[in-house]
Parts: sequence; C-alpha cells; structure tokens
Amino acid sequence: MLNQKYVDMLSKKSVIRELSEYAVARGKEIGYENVFDYTLGNPSVPVPQRFNDSVIRLIGEKSPMDLHGYSQSLGIAEVRQAVADSLNKRFGMNYSMNHIFMASGAAGALAHAFRLVTVPGDEIITFAPFFPEYNPYVTQTGAVLTVVPPNTENFQINFDAFESMISEKTMAVLVNSPNNPSGIVYSTDTIKRLAAILKEKSKQYGHIIYLISDEPYREIVFNNVDAPYIAKYYDATITCYSFSKSLSIPGERIGYVAINPACPDAEQMIVMCGQISRGIGHNCPASIIQLAVAENLDITADLSVYEKNMNILNDELKSLGFEVVKPGGTFYIFPKALEEDAVAFCKKGTKYDFIGVPADSFGCPGYFRLAYCIETEKVERSLEAIRKFVKSEY
Amino acid sequence: MLNQKYVDMLSKKSVIRELSEYAVARGKEIGYENVFDYTLGNPSVPVPQRFNDSVIRLIGEKSPMDLHGYSQSLGIAEVRQAVADSLNKRFGMNYSMNHIFMASGAAGALAHAFRLVTVPGDEIITFAPFFPEYNPYVTQTGAVLTVVPPNTENFQINFDAFESMISEKTMAVLVNSPNNPSGIVYSTDTIKRLAAILKEKSKQYGHIIYLISDEPYREIVFNNVDAPYIAKYYDATITCYSFSKSLSIPGERIGYVAINPACPDAEQMIVMCGQISRGIGHNCPASIIQLAVAENLDITADLSVYEKNMNILNDELKSLGFEVVKPGGTFYIFPKALEEDAVAFCKKGTKYDFIGVPADSFGCPGYFRLAYCIETEKVERSLEAIRKFVKSEY
Repeated sequence: MLNQKYVDMLSKKSVIRELSEYAVARGKEIGYENVFDYTLGNPSVPVPQRFNDSVIRLIGEKSPMDLHGYSQSLGIAEVRQAVADSLNKRFGMNYSMNHIFMASGAAGALAHAFRLVTVPGDEIITFAPFFPEYNPYVTQTGAVLTVVPPNTENFQINFDAFESMISEKTMAVLVNSPNNPSGIVYSTDTIKRLAAILKEKSKQYGHIIYLISDEPYREIVFNNVDAPYIAKYYDATITCYSFSKSLSIPGERIGYVAINPACPDAEQMIVMCGQISRGIGHNCPASIIQLAVAENLDITADLSVYEKNMNILNDELKSLGFEVVKPGGTFYIFPKALEEDAVAFCKKGTKYDFIGVPADSFGCPGYFRLAYCIETEKVERSLEAIRKFVKSEY
Repeated sequence: MLNQKYVDMLSKKSVIRELSEYAVARGKEIGYENVFDYTLGNPSVPVPQRFNDSVIRLIGEKSPMDLHGYSQSLGIAEVRQAVADSLNKRFGMNYSMNHIFMASGAAGALAHAFRLVTVPGDEIITFAPFFPEYNPYVTQTGAVLTVVPPNTENFQINFDAFESMISEKTMAVLVNSPNNPSGIVYSTDTIKRLAAILKEKSKQYGHIIYLISDEPYREIVFNNVDAPYIAKYYDATITCYSFSKSLSIPGERIGYVAINPACPDAEQMIVMCGQISRGIGHNCPASIIQLAVAENLDITADLSVYEKNMNILNDELKSLGFEVVKPGGTFYIFPKALEEDAVAFCKKGTKYDFIGVPADSFGCPGYFRLAYCIETEKVERSLEAIRKFVKSEY
C-alpha cells in the first residue's frame, strides 16, 4: 500500500509555490518582465566563469576514472581537505578533513545533522521566522520541531521565550543566520548569549545540546554588518553549508557538514554521516562538482547586486510607512504588512502585479517576505507598482 | 546525544571493504599491478567521450541560470521526457515524463521506492544472493528485509522457498537482474512466474505487492542472453536505474525511478517521490549531469571488455574444477569455494595475491564473488596465481 504520510503531504499546497505559479502564469499574460515577482529565493547572478573553467579543465586533465569514479563515502579526500583549509584560513578554525562531510546542498547536510543527534521523539528548537522546509526536514526523521516565537523588534533571538521552552527533550537548536526570511544576521552578542544558555542547559540536563547552524547565506553579508562564524562560539556546533547561493549553482547540489573539532566525538560524527547516507540514499555530491568547487572555495559570484536591491527596497518601503528591519544579508527583506492578515495583504498586492509571500508558514504571521534576487532594473520599476498598491489600498 | 543506531553501525566492518583495503595496502608493497584485486564493482572502462563533450557544450551554450539553476523537485522536465522516450523506444513501454523521477543513482532511487510503498514494520522480500547494502537501505526506513535462500543450481529464483515465505506483511519484492553478485540474468520464464505469484498473492491479501526492480546492470548483458525488461511483465513495477555502470560515471550520482504507467496511481507515486525527498535531503541529481545524461541515453561506455573477462575467468575456473554458473551479464562471477568456509577460502587466496570476496554477506555462504571490472591483461595474468593457489591449497 502507498505510504499515506506522503499521500497526505500532496494535499498541502505551499503558499509560496502558489504565488510563484501565479506570477509565472500572469507573466504569460502581460509579459514576465511586467510581473514584480518577489516570491522565490533563486540566485540571479551568474556562476563565476572560473567555476565553469574548472569543470572544463578537469574534463581535459583528469582520467575518466578519477573524474567520474565513485567518491569516497564521506566525499573526495582532497576536497574535504580544501574545505577545511579554507574555513581555517577565513575563520581561524582548526578543522581537518576528518571534520568535513560533503553533502548534496544544505538540505542534504541538514538531513545528516538531524539524524546524527536525535532519535524519534527528541526535540529540535528553532527560531521564528524560519525556513518552512525545516518542518518536513525534521518531522520526517521522527523528531519534533519546536518554534520559538519571533523577536519582531530586531529579529535577533527572543531569549525569554527560548529559555522558557528549552527542556531536557531538546537535543539540538537550529539557527539560520543570515536568516531566511528576515535577512537579519545574528550578532556576536546574540551568538554569545545563545552559546552561554546552551552550555548551561547541557550541563543541567546532562547531555550535549548541539547547535546546528544552517549557513547557505553565509557569504551574502552586507557592508560592515557584524557576522560571527557561529562555530567559533560553541564547541558542539554542526555547521551545514551550501554553495548554492555563494557560487550561484543551486542545481548542482553541493554543500558540506563541518563539525567543530572541539565538539566531543567530532571525527566519529563525520564517519557516522557516511552510515546515515546508506539509509537515505545520499552517496555524496557529484564528483565533478566536488572537484570544481574545491578549486573555487575562496571566490563567490558577484553578490553586490543583492545589497543594491536591498537598499532600494528598504528605503522605499520605509518611506511608504512600512515597519521594516534593515537586512544585514541574504536576498530577503521582511516588512510588516499594512493589515493584520498578511495573506490578504499579499493577495491585494497581486492586483498591482506586486508578488510577495505572506510569512504565516515562516512562523511570523502579519509579515511578508520579498526575495529580491532579481535584476536591479526590475526592482526599480517595481517601486511604482508598490506605491500605487499602498496608496490605493491603505 | 549521538544516535546510537549509527554509532553501532561503525563497529560492523564490511568484509568487502576489508579485503579491498588489504588489496590496496598490499599494492603499496608489491605494486598494485601485481595484486589481482577482484573486490570492488567499480566500472573500469572510460565514460564515452560524447558525455564529456555534452558537459563542455552545455557550459558554452546554456545560460548559467538554466544550466546551474534549481532543477524542479522531480528532475528537469526535458530530462524526464527524454528518459521516458528512450525507455518507450527500447522496450515498447508507454512512459510519459510523469512516470519518471530523477534520482541520485540507484541508491537514491531505492531510497524513494522503499518509502513509497512501505511503512515501518512492513516487509520487503529479496532473493539471495543479494547486494548487502539492501540491508541498511531497507532497515533504516523501518521496514524489514526478508531474504529468500538461493537457488544455487542456476541462481534464478528459489520459488518454493519464496512461496512459503511471502505473507500479508509483504508489501514489496525487490529483484536485481542482472544480479550482483551472481552475474545471472533472470529469464523471461522466471519473471513471468514471479509476476503470476505476485498477482495472485496481491489478490489474496487484498493489497498490491509492488515489484521493485533494481537495474544498475541492465546494459551489461552478454551475447544472446534472454534479458526481459521486467516492468513489461508486471503492472505494479517500480524500476530503479543508475547510469553508473552503463556510462561509467558512478561518482556523478545519477539514475531514476520509473513507474509502470499501468501501475495504479503511477503518476501520484512520482509526485510522492518529491515529498519523500524533502525528508531525506535528496533534491535531485546535479543539473549539469541530468542535462548531459539526457543527451546520451542511447549509448553506453564500451562494455565489451566485461564479457571478454567473464569468458576468460569462466573457462579457467571451470577447468580448475570450480562449480560456477556462467554469468549472463554484470561484471561479476560467482563460483562455489573449494571449501565450505568461503571466508577461509578467500583468506587463503590472499597469500597468492588473488583477492575475491566471500558471499556470506550476500546471503550465500560457501560462494565467493569476483568483480572482473579490471583490465583484460590483468585478468590473464591472474590466471597463474589462481592456478597456483588452487593446486597448492586444495
């Protein structure tokens, strides 16, 4: 018989997907260039030419077996070493290749991290607003995802709520900074305070509470924003990274798990990732992509357009009277809607071909997310639509 | 706390891996060319040049976003359509793209197939000898893998044992033909008989018993061997395919799930695969690999070396008195050891630098597997070592 759990999931339509499909359909009517589609977090800047050059050169230089052969189950050794070296150089860490597991994007990395440190029934805590895919990611392992309500003042952590919710069932805390959807970067103070609580609570409950840090937006941090490398502040940190946004290669599915060498059993945990893979059919990112990424660890796509777009939108939204916390990174901005029901607000916006997504599924009702990973020219053209929308409806 | 299930797995060392590591270590002493290492099923023939040419051309022709962007969660539409077209042309099927889900190799495909049709506690039956990874693949879903003992006469299915073991808890039957480790291809008669039993038992138990067909060796079938396309004979067939062996690209992690259009709810099952992916962090094979494979569906690497190697080994082993069923495909041969304990037999072989793997973990004690995906020249040189081993020890 078909597994009913997955049948049931089919009936739950994602609001983001619905609005995105609406935007594409509307684009077919009036030209997609006239639809101000802020729904999807797809990188809009091209991969660095150097990455493509690496792929072509690898094909020319490597023997077919070395290039296309099975990767070791934890990832290609030289790639893991290159990732460790890069992290050490950039963040003053001391990873070795034995602390790195190559994963098929952040989704693959998180799938391993959750299974490493929880069994069914255990609790993972995360903070609103949060990436809604965390729900299926966590619940399908059998663990429970508990969401701490947002601190809407600045979208740092709501520590009062967190301290009242953490319990002995909490095996891990999941953070995402720079944050999807708020665009906020957790400050050094926030991370230090979080680390202090986790340390104290680990002691109190007699088991390590792991910090799982989901960092696909790590490279998209705006000018002068305080953006600590989270693992530096807490030993038992499992960092989950993706190259999707930094290199603009989301389709190539590559990232990694990095476990802080100071974490007890760090090296064993990496080997355990290889065992987890056997059950979930993971078996590493594509070899050619691993090898090409290893040659391009210290560069990114030209990410400057995101900050430019953010400033344009932030200024305009503020001047129109929106409550908005200025993003420190990512390609998202997260204003408060002009009425209580953000779903109704976003629906009204569609009349003006201005398409954002309400944040109910992000754990933050009343707010909406704009993904401004689109061309600056289009952001500029959208301002008139936003103005017209706001002035006509509110 | 660390998930003990995965900690426990670390202590179970795979015999295949141990022997393979031994072979590599021994190679460092005496030169790897002098170690007759038959342990690992790694393709030994190069990828077709056309595949590499496709990758290079795609980089030149496609826009970076189209090439490296997110693939749809079920795979890139044009790739799924190309796979359907190719199967229809080759096997007279009528798949559409809605029956195809792109997966990261056969391991990824199987991870989805098992979760589609079982819930924890359900049973999946397979037939010895079988690929030992089926154990973690199945048991980590919570389902139970039941193994039907081998038919050592010809390594087709032991139907008497199967019929006594199938029960109302059986939700799926898993076959692997051409078979790892036996090298045997299930005949049309075998598949017809299996299909008839599954049909009857599905009716008797009031639920569909799915046939999951793991076919990574489909293209490696030797001259004139009867090799039916299994889904043609049973409606509720879930075919799991990998391009690892046919194109010699195991590191690139690409394959697919194809569900027979005649299977009830076939299209819904494909959409369910997208939901399963969310929980296991799958998210499709790399885009560039999907696109390159789609241009090379009807070619294979030059697989002829495998048949040549098989014939050399088959003749020699027979003349040395081994009981061996001549393989119909794959790059494995599966003789009976010359003593009851195949582990002891293989250990003795290492003294002569002849390294095969005992089949205890394949569910067939007393037999051993040789993976002859090595150069013919080395196969020929190995014969003297095998002769010396047999004549000295038995």
